[in-house]
Amino acid sequence: MNRPIIATIHTDAFRHNLGRIRELAPESKIWSVVKAKAYGHTLGAVLQGLESTDGFALLDIADAQWLRDHAWGGRILLLEGLFSEQELELAVKLKCDLVIHSQKQLEWLESFQNRSNQQINVFLKLNSGMNRLGFKPEQYRAAFHRLHAAGYRLHHMTHFANADQVERSPSVGEQMECFEKVTTGLDAPCSLANSAAILWHRNALGDWVRPGILLYGVSPTGVHADIVRSDFHPVMQLRSEIIDIQELKKGDHVGYGGRYQAPEDMLIGVIACGYADGYPRHAGDGTPVWVEAADAQGGGVICPIVGQVSMDMLTIDLRGAPNAKIGSIVELWGSEVPVDDVAQMSGTIGYELICALAQRVPVVIK
Amino acid sequence: MNRPIIATIHTDAFRHNLGRIRELAPESKIWSVVKAKAYGHTLGAVLQGLESTDGFALLDIADAQWLRDHAWGGRILLLEGLFSEQELELAVKLKCDLVIHSQKQLEWLESFQNRSNQQINVFLKLNSGMNRLGFKPEQYRAAFHRLHAAGYRLHHMTHFANADQVERSPSVGEQMECFEKVTTGLDAPCSLANSAAILWHRNALGDWVRPGILLYGVSPTGVHADIVRSDFHPVMQLRSEIIDIQELKKGDHVGYGGRYQAPEDMLIGVIACGYADGYPRHAGDGTPVWVEAADAQGGGVICPIVGQVSMDMLTIDLRGAPNAKIGSIVELWGSEVPVDDVAQMSGTIGYELICALAQRVPVVIK
Repeated sequence: MNRPIIATIHTDAFRHNLGRIRELAPESKIWSVVKAKAYGHTLGAVLQGLESTDGFALLDIADAQWLRDHAWGGRILLLEGLFSEQELELAVKLKCDLVIHSQKQLEWLESFQNRSNQQINVFLKLNSGMNRLGFKPEQYRAAFHRLHAAGYRLHHMTHFANADQVERSPSVGEQMECFEKVTTGLDAPCSLANSAAILWHRNALGDWVRPGILLYGVSPTGVHADIVRSDFHPVMQLRSEIIDIQELKKGDHVGYGGRYQAPEDMLIGVIACGYADGYPRHAGDGTPVWVEAADAQGGGVICPIVGQVSMDMLTIDLRGAPNAKIGSIVELWGSEVPVDDVAQMSGTIGYELICALAQRVPVVIK
Repeated sequence: MNRPIIATIHTDAFRHNLGRIRELAPESKIWSVVKAKAYGHTLGAVLQGLESTDGFALLDIADAQWLRDHAWGGRILLLEGLFSEQELELAVKLKCDLVIHSQKQLEWLESFQNRSNQQINVFLKLNSGMNRLGFKPEQYRAAFHRLHAAGYRLHHMTHFANADQVERSPSVGEQMECFEKVTTGLDAPCSLANSAAILWHRNALGDWVRPGILLYGVSPTGVHADIVRSDFHPVMQLRSEIIDIQELKKGDHVGYGGRYQAPEDMLIGVIACGYADGYPRHAGDGTPVWVEAADAQGGGVICPIVGQVSMDMLTIDLRGAPNAKIGSIVELWGSEVPVDDVAQMSGTIGYELICALAQRVPVVIK
């Protein structure tokens, strides 16, 4: 046995979450967004759990190659299109759909079409206010016509900046207004909604929705309560063990910087999990860790972090866990501790934590 | 070409930094700490850059196996010893030195010695105030005698909680006092100093020093200025490219949440690097990014981040970079932008950032 930390990927939760998306967007096709190694869940796991999706959307052409090598015959969308003209040949060979968001990419496609006789699906990206990628409204229609003339099968696409928030600018309404004005009369299917819009902007779904974070059972807002009633299940479970227990005297300090000081004599548990495993160093005192069979009745119990998370370890207050012992299993996040709660205690969102799962943590697909 | 992000590991900087440690601790042997995949730098790189170390210290026995498989014949220290009794067989086969920090590990070693005729180096860990791992002062001497009786070759070891800070409790002085009192008369070599103690507590080095973060050219305090005069060189350089440029009008917002609002008409650059690459999502507006050949004279220039770092992208203010274009190379951290500076703008320390380098970022060893 190595260090006892392990991440389990629950493919039944993947299947459930994809089913929930189908219920929420019954008339749309689904691009399952699996960039960043499926938000840390591995591409192997999505092939097992999300095989009934209409397509996978990702960034790295190497990941598209991996999916084809592992017998994925469905559609694949390159979410940022091509990073160089040379990629185009391979993208076509892999039958990828392409997002086109810049003038340069447009030129590459124009110069390519003469040499190709395949019909290629293009998702032309409009910058409707996000101001990250995409054609400005005043450039969009010309780009559409040029790609149309070059023989590409066109789709409209845009991305919302604030589908998870109200009172932030630009709003979904403002972006939709821009989108509709710019695309009027340009007949093509469209792809609009990300996870937050699927939940909260049902008038902005489009022919293809692009769920990411919801597939993984994590909240688009960063707040777990916001998705509890929508019935999404966490897919990743991160577990480890108590590897040591320390007896503190009142006044003793714990860990680097001595951030936590014992208010009385107490026991603390040392967990084999630190920031080099992907656990956030920002996690404050009070961040929940679930300890199996630890309370007086032998039930699981939440124990709060005390002291600075270090590279390979973190420390928890065992005062509520009289049965905890070396070897007790702990859940850092999963079904007992929503990853969103850990993220909130760390000033970030669940997205960042699941993506940050470190290479040294073994992953088991279940 | 894939996404243009790449991490370069400079092995000449490794050699230089190891040389600096030798100058600072000329009478000590050196455990080069390479846990967490060498703080994100890969074990392959340390075998090239740190081959003249006296030994490598790490956590995962699988990493010890990897080093032996790649012809490392020198010493290896398992920094947290054994995670289970079953590991002992392999650890001995791999000729690992063992840290022993708990009663359980002590019992495993006692029951093993009857079956073994090898002399095994043990670093017995004293909890002198860190309160994470190690024997309490009142348990330490008994543990020492038992391991001695069982035939192990013993060393003393402790770890400092605040070698990088003053006015935090416990101080290095307090921990040293505890260490000296407990080990009096127990003749054995000792291992004391981490990176911070090597720099600032020259009376607390010990026979074996354990540099970690300094080997990677990063500051133990989290503040780059604290190591500038000590002449350590950054080993990891993270680079990417501008993949798009957006023209903002005064009042436009950028990215999720619209955190940044343009104070005037301006250009922003979109960089292929996000938190799923290991860049911190906490990075605030103003976090420095270096852009090659971007100023009016064709020199490199620092451009500040504007807007929320997203999963795959971040955005920078190009007002000071009139020559920046799509394809311009940027350095996220390395020799132009100390990783400590990025960490400070993100409320953390450089340790966390280098360890968090994501699996999807290609690594080149140079």
